Amino acid sequence: MNNLVVILAFAISFILCVIMCPVMIPILRKLKFGQNVREEGPQSHLKKSGTPTMGGIAIVIAMIIGAVWFVGRDPGIWMILLMTLLFGAIGFIDDMLKIVHHQSEGLKAWQKMGLQIIVTAAMVLFVALGTENGTSLLVPFYGLVNFGGWFYPLAVFAILGTVNGANFTDGLDGLASTVTIVIAGFITVASAVLGRGISPAALSMAGALCAFLCYNCYPAKVFMGDTGSLALGGFVAASAFALKMPIFLIFIAFIYLAEILSVILQVGSFKMTHGKKRIFRMAPLHHHFELGGWSETRVVTIFTVVTLIGCILAYAGMGFVL
Amino acid sequence: MNNLVVILAFAISFILCVIMCPVMIPILRKLKFGQNVREEGPQSHLKKSGTPTMGGIAIVIAMIIGAVWFVGRDPGIWMILLMTLLFGAIGFIDDMLKIVHHQSEGLKAWQKMGLQIIVTAAMVLFVALGTENGTSLLVPFYGLVNFGGWFYPLAVFAILGTVNGANFTDGLDGLASTVTIVIAGFITVASAVLGRGISPAALSMAGALCAFLCYNCYPAKVFMGDTGSLALGGFVAASAFALKMPIFLIFIAFIYLAEILSVILQVGSFKMTHGKKRIFRMAPLHHHFELGGWSETRVVTIFTVVTLIGCILAYAGMGFVL
Repeated sequence: MNNLVVILAFAISFILCVIMCPVMIPILRKLKFGQNVREEGPQSHLKKSGTPTMGGIAIVIAMIIGAVWFVGRDPGIWMILLMTLLFGAIGFIDDMLKIVHHQSEGLKAWQKMGLQIIVTAAMVLFVALGTENGTSLLVPFYGLVNFGGWFYPLAVFAILGTVNGANFTDGLDGLASTVTIVIAGFITVASAVLGRGISPAALSMAGALCAFLCYNCYPAKVFMGDTGSLALGGFVAASAFALKMPIFLIFIAFIYLAEILSVILQVGSFKMTHGKKRIFRMAPLHHHFELGGWSETRVVTIFTVVTLIGCILAYAGMGFVL
Repeated sequence: MNNLVVILAFAISFILCVIMCPVMIPILRKLKFGQNVREEGPQSHLKKSGTPTMGGIAIVIAMIIGAVWFVGRDPGIWMILLMTLLFGAIGFIDDMLKIVHHQSEGLKAWQKMGLQIIVTAAMVLFVALGTENGTSLLVPFYGLVNFGGWFYPLAVFAILGTVNGANFTDGLDGLASTVTIVIAGFITVASAVLGRGISPAALSMAGALCAFLCYNCYPAKVFMGDTGSLALGGFVAASAFALKMPIFLIFIAFIYLAEILSVILQVGSFKMTHGKKRIFRMAPLHHHFELGGWSETRVVTIFTVVTLIGCILAYAGMGFVL
């Protein structure tokens, strides 16, 4: 009956999320939980002001309810659900503050980073000391390597990069959802190929995101907010660690990492040249291509295709037989 | 080294197609190979007039070159390539006649159907008499059943429905491409799970379509034309037969079949009520939802999600362990 697991994990979260969204959207709008579009974004995005945000609440609830039945299959599922929830909670606080203060900045940068570091540190210690995975990681095209003490900085770097990358990726209608559906598909397959049992968590996330995407695709009726994007980052990072595959995030979460790297490079180049030069037309990366003449939908499509290519490379890097 | 197969099949066709498209688009435009948008379509689609069509040529060439190296892995790959090419050729003739005659109708309906029936009959006879598959088919949630003489009408029905369904699906920017990428992903997985070797053909099609989609997504710079959509239909139908799974097309190619069914029901209801009543606002089905207020991009997203759900149901119906 294992084939039923596939249906159930996906179906429960899909159905929950597809019902929750149309119920939530008018409530969020009434409560003025609309997005305060950041002033430094592209001009064309100002019309998005007022679109309800925090749709990520529906994703997180649906994903957890869809997956929680299957925790017995793999202890990794507990970690994935917990990290999705905790990073989602940080995003939720951030979103709430934005709404209460009517501005596009919620938590201060150091507050947001501080909370993230606490959750990240807890997860890294749990993986290294509390699971059989320990400090061993799969290296693409090679095999299992015990990183010993190097595991800790590498793990912190991978988690913070993924979570904040997901956060920056959420800047165009449907972008974070679509990219993460592809990643969830990869995690489903990778878990099965590796003989692990976290597929239900990934399928549940895919189901919730497919439902959410029906409302979040261009032109978006709802945004996921930081609640959603940080939860997605937490899900992807935790799944990668459950499979000992955080190094594979370079391929799988290439777009997340490219987005955050573009922000770092942009700020760095701006500061180093004392405001004279910038590397990108605008950061994060998706705005660079948008200002270069690509339509919003084209950026989403191409970033999704790039994610798919990254997942195929990661699959090849797993070195398993098809 | 089997993991390299995965990369190569996808990468060869992706790279070929991603290079061919920008080279072809200005040539097609110069030769006035623009789409003559059908007059009875939605008003909002008239602006698409002049967008170059026949981009399907790039898909077919890239897909065949990407997959032909792997024919030794499964005799089914030969059949898939041949059917993709032959149905693509019927579409090509249709497209050429449209351009030469400067109208939205190419081959007459009976001519198009006649050519399709010849190719379909050849394929059905080949599968039944020339392969070890014979007249046996997998029944979802059940198992292998020998259909004997019933195989022939069922097979003809499945192929013509799929091919013409794919043809009708190609009516919104990126719709046929996106839906068929998901189907190709399912075929890749199904072939691996069943221990067959046709994955390279499906990966090659996915690669070509991912590349094409970068130009074909909303707002489209190129259309695939009948060359592309009939080729996609041929690919999906032949792949299903190679895996003994044509009955699964009800799930996998649900959108194709819903599109063609909507046309049949629309024409039927119109004729039966002597022009007084229509079931849909407009057929094929995607126009019905568009006229109901969904944006073009939303219809594409939701039809793709529906295809993914269909593929998950089909996977469950295969009755195999994840």
